[in-house]
Amino acid sequence: MKDVVNVGIVGFGTVGSGTAKILLEQRHLLEQRASTAINLKWICDKDITTDRGFPVPENILTTDINTLLDDPELDIFVELIGGIEPAKTFILKAIEKGKHVVTANKALLATHGFEIFEAAAKKGVEIGIEASVGGGIPCIKALKEGLVANNVNTVLGIMNGTANYILTRMTQEGLPFQEVLKQAQELGYAEADPTYDVEGIDTAHKLAIMSTLAFGKKIELSDIYTEGISKIEPMDISFATELGYSIKLLAIGKKNSQETIDVRIHPTMIPQDHLLSQVNGAFNAVYFVGDSVGKVMLYGMGAGQMPTGSAIVADVVDIARDLVRGCIGRVPALSQPFDSIGPASIKPVESVLCKYYFRFSVKDKPGVLAKISGILGKEDISIHSVVQKGRAHRSSSVPIVMLTHEAREGQVKKALKEIDSQDFILDETMIIRIEDMKALEES
Amino acid sequence: MKDVVNVGIVGFGTVGSGTAKILLEQRHLLEQRASTAINLKWICDKDITTDRGFPVPENILTTDINTLLDDPELDIFVELIGGIEPAKTFILKAIEKGKHVVTANKALLATHGFEIFEAAAKKGVEIGIEASVGGGIPCIKALKEGLVANNVNTVLGIMNGTANYILTRMTQEGLPFQEVLKQAQELGYAEADPTYDVEGIDTAHKLAIMSTLAFGKKIELSDIYTEGISKIEPMDISFATELGYSIKLLAIGKKNSQETIDVRIHPTMIPQDHLLSQVNGAFNAVYFVGDSVGKVMLYGMGAGQMPTGSAIVADVVDIARDLVRGCIGRVPALSQPFDSIGPASIKPVESVLCKYYFRFSVKDKPGVLAKISGILGKEDISIHSVVQKGRAHRSSSVPIVMLTHEAREGQVKKALKEIDSQDFILDETMIIRIEDMKALEES
Repeated sequence: MKDVVNVGIVGFGTVGSGTAKILLEQRHLLEQRASTAINLKWICDKDITTDRGFPVPENILTTDINTLLDDPELDIFVELIGGIEPAKTFILKAIEKGKHVVTANKALLATHGFEIFEAAAKKGVEIGIEASVGGGIPCIKALKEGLVANNVNTVLGIMNGTANYILTRMTQEGLPFQEVLKQAQELGYAEADPTYDVEGIDTAHKLAIMSTLAFGKKIELSDIYTEGISKIEPMDISFATELGYSIKLLAIGKKNSQETIDVRIHPTMIPQDHLLSQVNGAFNAVYFVGDSVGKVMLYGMGAGQMPTGSAIVADVVDIARDLVRGCIGRVPALSQPFDSIGPASIKPVESVLCKYYFRFSVKDKPGVLAKISGILGKEDISIHSVVQKGRAHRSSSVPIVMLTHEAREGQVKKALKEIDSQDFILDETMIIRIEDMKALEES
Repeated sequence: MKDVVNVGIVGFGTVGSGTAKILLEQRHLLEQRASTAINLKWICDKDITTDRGFPVPENILTTDINTLLDDPELDIFVELIGGIEPAKTFILKAIEKGKHVVTANKALLATHGFEIFEAAAKKGVEIGIEASVGGGIPCIKALKEGLVANNVNTVLGIMNGTANYILTRMTQEGLPFQEVLKQAQELGYAEADPTYDVEGIDTAHKLAIMSTLAFGKKIELSDIYTEGISKIEPMDISFATELGYSIKLLAIGKKNSQETIDVRIHPTMIPQDHLLSQVNGAFNAVYFVGDSVGKVMLYGMGAGQMPTGSAIVADVVDIARDLVRGCIGRVPALSQPFDSIGPASIKPVESVLCKYYFRFSVKDKPGVLAKISGILGKEDISIHSVVQKGRAHRSSSVPIVMLTHEAREGQVKKALKEIDSQDFILDETMIIRIEDMKALEES
């Protein structure tokens, strides 16, 4: 029996520090639970001098990645630098050297995951990716092991803590997007360049990973229809609240009975009595529907030093347990045999059916409502209700809010293109989809 | 490599049928995922003639338990008859014969779990218990594997679907307990004898299992302070709603810094903006607080044929994966080495501090409030607010509702004993604890 498993971390930033802290401080606990010592042998970073706030033995710090790659005793290579390069090269080299890999790198997995999984399969090493989705939430283990008896045909989720934090504060305090974003940046909850988080790109990375795992099809980033939250105004949130909804940046992955896959990310109105609408602040939730188990939701911190470190160390222990018992490869990397996974047949977003919230910004003059209704009617979009409130103080623009019955996205886009070209329209029309959660949850 | 894993089920009731259905109908899927065929070789029950609604090969049905116990080819013994005997004898015999065991039997695990774990450890076989808590929710795997990097010092949960269903309908429809219970029984959501579910006993079984796993201490049923929901009146629920709370039958397990353990089950007022207060109907939730990961909640169906079957089959696949790779015992049964687990030092319920809701049923006469306040004051129980509403139509009794500041349970009990012996008290005083969720969630 292997009595020590050697771990090397590359990337000593936020998550790297959390991971190292757990490995160093919980050494005894982990040894008991893994039935082997788990030894943090190397930490590699360009910066190995800045104090990370906890004691680190100096002889494990290095700036040279080859110290890890060339160490024949290193069992597990933990990549926490993020981004595509040099992370990809490092991981592929580590695999080539026969090292098991743990990574939180969702951008890399969503774009080059198959290349990495293929290299690992060929070499017979494991890839731990729990931390890439949902931070500390053990959602990938739940899917691959806990729900192993299920065909999981629906994956929903609030998968970006920054976007959810911003929406929550906009909802609770009525503040505009830009103001909350600025505060979030000051508090360190949002990056200097927040594009990935607020425009849904980070969520798309995670949805690509989760839906590939759940549906056993190659879901590419380009397959996912992605819309962010930056255009949402406090007015939209207050209308939504009044109508009984929360607005969330929802990731939707759904395999339909015809085996086409619907993968989308956009601001979504979720009824206030649905659990997902109650996931607030920087918290994330991943929501599965399985054909035996029904609905299962997992909730927790989707980011942060210690929660993400918790998921990284869980993967390290999982691999250590396999190493100790000589059962590497015990749980397949994907829910389907690797070579059986083909490209996905993606449902075109134009064919998606849902209800819509429109907010038109119009000049206050007669005939506007008739004109809008006429264009919608021409595209078979039937109006459920209209709210027109008085003109805001010192504004020439009046908001008209409309809820529709179910309509097809393609026709909605066509109608809005025509509406937005009218001279009485003062600003691009805001659209928010209202999902029928019951239909989404059907397995 | 083992190319087939043989499974036998004893108990062909609701969960047994769900398990058999999945094993038979998802054979191909499971074989792919487990890297071995999983063969349902035997189903044993007293009744093997009633139609269970799906085709079952006749040659796998038997009424003789020894057919399973004596079959040298049987790898996994799935016990789904429930109750203490003969389940316990069957399981111990199966272990003695070297068979791995999967069980959903929370009553047995909560009372004789250690004897079973000990026998299994001695024989080198695995015991799968995922289905014993939270039905289809993979909460035990989450705790033992997903949160392996954490000291989990808090386990909270809504762990009984029947009780939660009743409370939810009482809340949403304002109906009395007895009426909802009767309807639940008619719908098959509650047993003919509902005592286990509504008096918190079933929840206590589950809390004993979860807190033993989480805290690494022997938690006995008798350690757990248990109070059910049968005394709650619609009036209590409407007061709670007005005050911004939901009433839930909450299981609380908390290891304190002094290593004493607080384990309690009672109706609890939870603020409406806490996620646990939004877990409605027959759904369950298990809520952990880990020292690295923070709060994690898992939500899903806590009972039912297919959800529980999903958890049973997950355990079967887990064991099959270990059998195929020859790594039985890969994940220890408990989070601490078996022989290091001692008895728990239980925090006496009398010393628990929390806020209280009291509903006094009093004769409408002068001086009553002064008398009650005086007795409470004598025990250092400080009143936060009082609501006294008019006398109900044709009732001689008037409810006085009081919320207290933090008080110690022992003093509350003493004060209430004195109050309830007063001649103006017409009925036993209703008490509901108001937990400080933030304090509970501190890790």
